[in-house]
Amino acid sequence: MFIKNCWYVAAWEHELLDERLLQRTILNESILFFRTSDGQVVALDNKCCHRHAPLSLGRREGDCIRCMYHGLKYDRHGRCVEIPGQTAIPRQMRVRSYPVVQSKRWVWIWMGDPAKADAALIPDTFSLQHPDWRMKPGYLQFQANHLLISDNLLDFSHLSYVHEGTLGGSLDIAQTRPTMERLERGVRVRREMSKITPAPYHQRLAQFSGPVDRWFVYDYLIPGVLLMESGVRPADLRLREREKTLNFHSCQALTPETATATHYFFASAHQSWLEEGATDHIYQSVLSAFAEDRRMIEAQQQLISSTAAADMLPLLGDAALGQFRLLMQRALEAENPQT
Amino acid sequence: MFIKNCWYVAAWEHELLDERLLQRTILNESILFFRTSDGQVVALDNKCCHRHAPLSLGRREGDCIRCMYHGLKYDRHGRCVEIPGQTAIPRQMRVRSYPVVQSKRWVWIWMGDPAKADAALIPDTFSLQHPDWRMKPGYLQFQANHLLISDNLLDFSHLSYVHEGTLGGSLDIAQTRPTMERLERGVRVRREMSKITPAPYHQRLAQFSGPVDRWFVYDYLIPGVLLMESGVRPADLRLREREKTLNFHSCQALTPETATATHYFFASAHQSWLEEGATDHIYQSVLSAFAEDRRMIEAQQQLISSTAAADMLPLLGDAALGQFRLLMQRALEAENPQT
Amino acid sequence: MFIKNCWYVAAWEHELLDERLLQRTILNESILFFRTSDGQVVALDNKCCHRHAPLSLGRREGDCIRCMYHGLKYDRHGRCVEIPGQTAIPRQMRVRSYPVVQSKRWVWIWMGDPAKADAALIPDTFSLQHPDWRMKPGYLQFQANHLLISDNLLDFSHLSYVHEGTLGGSLDIAQTRPTMERLERGVRVRREMSKITPAPYHQRLAQFSGPVDRWFVYDYLIPGVLLMESGVRPADLRLREREKTLNFHSCQALTPETATATHYFFASAHQSWLEEGATDHIYQSVLSAFAEDRRMIEAQQQLISSTAAADMLPLLGDAALGQFRLLMQRALEAENPQT
Repeated sequence: MFIKNCWYVAAWEHELLDERLLQRTILNESILFFRTSDGQVVALDNKCCHRHAPLSLGRREGDCIRCMYHGLKYDRHGRCVEIPGQTAIPRQMRVRSYPVVQSKRWVWIWMGDPAKADAALIPDTFSLQHPDWRMKPGYLQFQANHLLISDNLLDFSHLSYVHEGTLGGSLDIAQTRPTMERLERGVRVRREMSKITPAPYHQRLAQFSGPVDRWFVYDYLIPGVLLMESGVRPADLRLREREKTLNFHSCQALTPETATATHYFFASAHQSWLEEGATDHIYQSVLSAFAEDRRMIEAQQQLISSTAAADMLPLLGDAALGQFRLLMQRALEAENPQT
Repeated sequence: MFIKNCWYVAAWEHELLDERLLQRTILNESILFFRTSDGQVVALDNKCCHRHAPLSLGRREGDCIRCMYHGLKYDRHGRCVEIPGQTAIPRQMRVRSYPVVQSKRWVWIWMGDPAKADAALIPDTFSLQHPDWRMKPGYLQFQANHLLISDNLLDFSHLSYVHEGTLGGSLDIAQTRPTMERLERGVRVRREMSKITPAPYHQRLAQFSGPVDRWFVYDYLIPGVLLMESGVRPADLRLREREKTLNFHSCQALTPETATATHYFFASAHQSWLEEGATDHIYQSVLSAFAEDRRMIEAQQQLISSTAAADMLPLLGDAALGQFRLLMQRALEAENPQT
Repeated sequence: MFIKNCWYVAAWEHELLDERLLQRTILNESILFFRTSDGQVVALDNKCCHRHAPLSLGRREGDCIRCMYHGLKYDRHGRCVEIPGQTAIPRQMRVRSYPVVQSKRWVWIWMGDPAKADAALIPDTFSLQHPDWRMKPGYLQFQANHLLISDNLLDFSHLSYVHEGTLGGSLDIAQTRPTMERLERGVRVRREMSKITPAPYHQRLAQFSGPVDRWFVYDYLIPGVLLMESGVRPADLRLREREKTLNFHSCQALTPETATATHYFFASAHQSWLEEGATDHIYQSVLSAFAEDRRMIEAQQQLISSTAAADMLPLLGDAALGQFRLLMQRALEAENPQT
């Protein structure tokens, strides 16, 4: 069971170039994406209404798609506009079309009631497309339920352990209690650490000569979107003139593929003044770190799937995680009142 | 659920040479086939009645088969005739034996009540073994439900799309409405096209100098057997003296392995006067085309299996397909009145 | 469903050297094993009580294990002794600890009520660790239910067929009826063969000049432990002075991993006076033979899993097998009275 009435990231804009057909499974639904000649992105149910052949094996014909099984042709709205050997086309011959919005490099899809698809609800991922920021786009697939990844993102104490040699580098992260603030559709988490050892990848970027102050402030929003400011600077006030403050802005989004597989879109943007090479260095550091997360979370998923169900016991640091799971549960129940 | 009281093609005769043991799963039942010294084919339940070890891991001893787990020996009728270390052999020590008939290169098996196994019900696949006809035997396994393949064979409009570059070659096939006639245990489909572009593989066989007339007439019978005459000749009457008419006869049979896997036996025979090399050329063309079908049908099966159930919407051209599904459904219900 | 209140072999002692972490699934439970500094073996539920991350991806810290997801640290009893960023540790923060006993090279685990874990119930596997005996330790994993392997071990008539060219070598094994004696928690099986052809691997060890007498006497105990004396010597009394008697003692234990996978621990010890090289020769012979068993039993499991359920029909030689299955069934019912 998934929340349907919300925007999910379906793709990076650059995944839909030219005549390309992109099939992606979202919330167990197989969806075909393509870009029309006017630059809009179309999302259609991938199942031909006739015999359920995949339209993703079909052929672009202008802004239409032809099923290459028996030749039914659909327009960008999912309406069948041609049936070979048949002149009348019944009105019900169509596939579902999903609302899609392109916003700052991401393609968002609305999986629920189209009448509720308000583009104003789309989070502002400004750092993906802004002259002051640079980033390299990331995508991974996790063989795990999306909530396990949300858990991960809502408790950065794992940086001290999972990412000991990459993003972490200091036990102080785990030792610092974050604060959590409730938002209407999510939580705001703030974690500030003072006079700690810099993370290996920060050190390589800025060559700090001593301990640093480091902070994370992020909103984590339904159904699994993270927007984070973070930074690091010398803890010693006298060094702050000579040594730089590093500021980052990260956008991350989880989109369930199935109950045990999740699409993970991410980017960690830095300010444009950083030297050439920093973008790739940061991208590679984050990618290595997310591979560490993936190893842990997929092992966690396998253990949960293969053994008897048991309660998870909360820690004091799990406030944000617990609050977000509660919000998700309520949103799900609001959509499914009988359940 | 499968129809049991009917003949299914189990193998090509040449698959059962010498002492060979052939295991094949049919309708979810694991069956052992072998040929006895008098040339008959035996089909036995592959599960030893003692501990359910597979007899297909056993050893031929004359016309008997010995289970190589604990040494039980069965005769060609499935009766246990030796138990090591035990002289009395209880009557119930036996495995099921299935009625088998060899007819014109195919080995047919009856999966239901043996008392109803009437060899007269076996379709006449004359072109598989006739001096006027030549063919090369074909076999493929599809990871798909047999009904999806029957659907495919009952609507040749797909030739224009799936087989655009092989068996098809002309949109006119899809544009032509076939006629359908009800038979007692199947349907007869007729599709005639006039003045169309020849299919690539026909062109290579006959070098037609212009448009052609092309026709298919086939019976499609429960549980999934196709017997088809087809042909192609110059559309221009004046050319018919100089250019040849190509006549084909095709036999095809679907045998469910499981609910999502199907054995597919086929041959496309041509008249013997065609030049040497034609047999192999036709075989390769058909094999390539069936690989195109397989790609589409397996993708269709995967899409159906992995997404929520939905109705398939019929087209006018689906009359034969719909009629055949109805006949199959009725046959199934007749065998399972309580269902 | 498995019997829980009994000792299962979990590992060979040498699998737990140094700081090694061993994850092994037993009765569908994922368990972490490691050896503490005082030489004891610890078995803990592998699921961290916090978010169910596997402790087997964790880090040894002295005799403790730290979960490398969020840093919880557990002592050898499974008690959480450190939570990063949190001083109070609630009593319920712990993972289950299983009773473990090391006895003569094997590590035994008790999967049920710890109060009933009586080490006196552990079978005496003396030949695994005794100056008069030599052996090489064996382990295989079978993709089959443990009862199918117990069946195999309770009916040695299969030696004549499955192991025709290895451990068997004579049809007389299958022809000889064993005797069976009921034990409190198992059965005692005795099979004595007179004047038979020696097995290939015996012949290579002892170069018998004629027929031999051969015998097996073994106890087969809940939940699947075999302790066997066996031997072979010249049948001709006059040869017994010149030719040696071979005596073996074999310990074998089955531990269910899941309903369709089983850990198989085994060793076949010989008397220490045998020439150098005999240990390895016997080990290789037994390993080859058990690979023959595995092929048959895994095929049997697949056939049973993929086809409709059917009764297995007993033979006269199945008395021990039937009696043992009955004992297992009763032990299971005694633990689960409502079932």
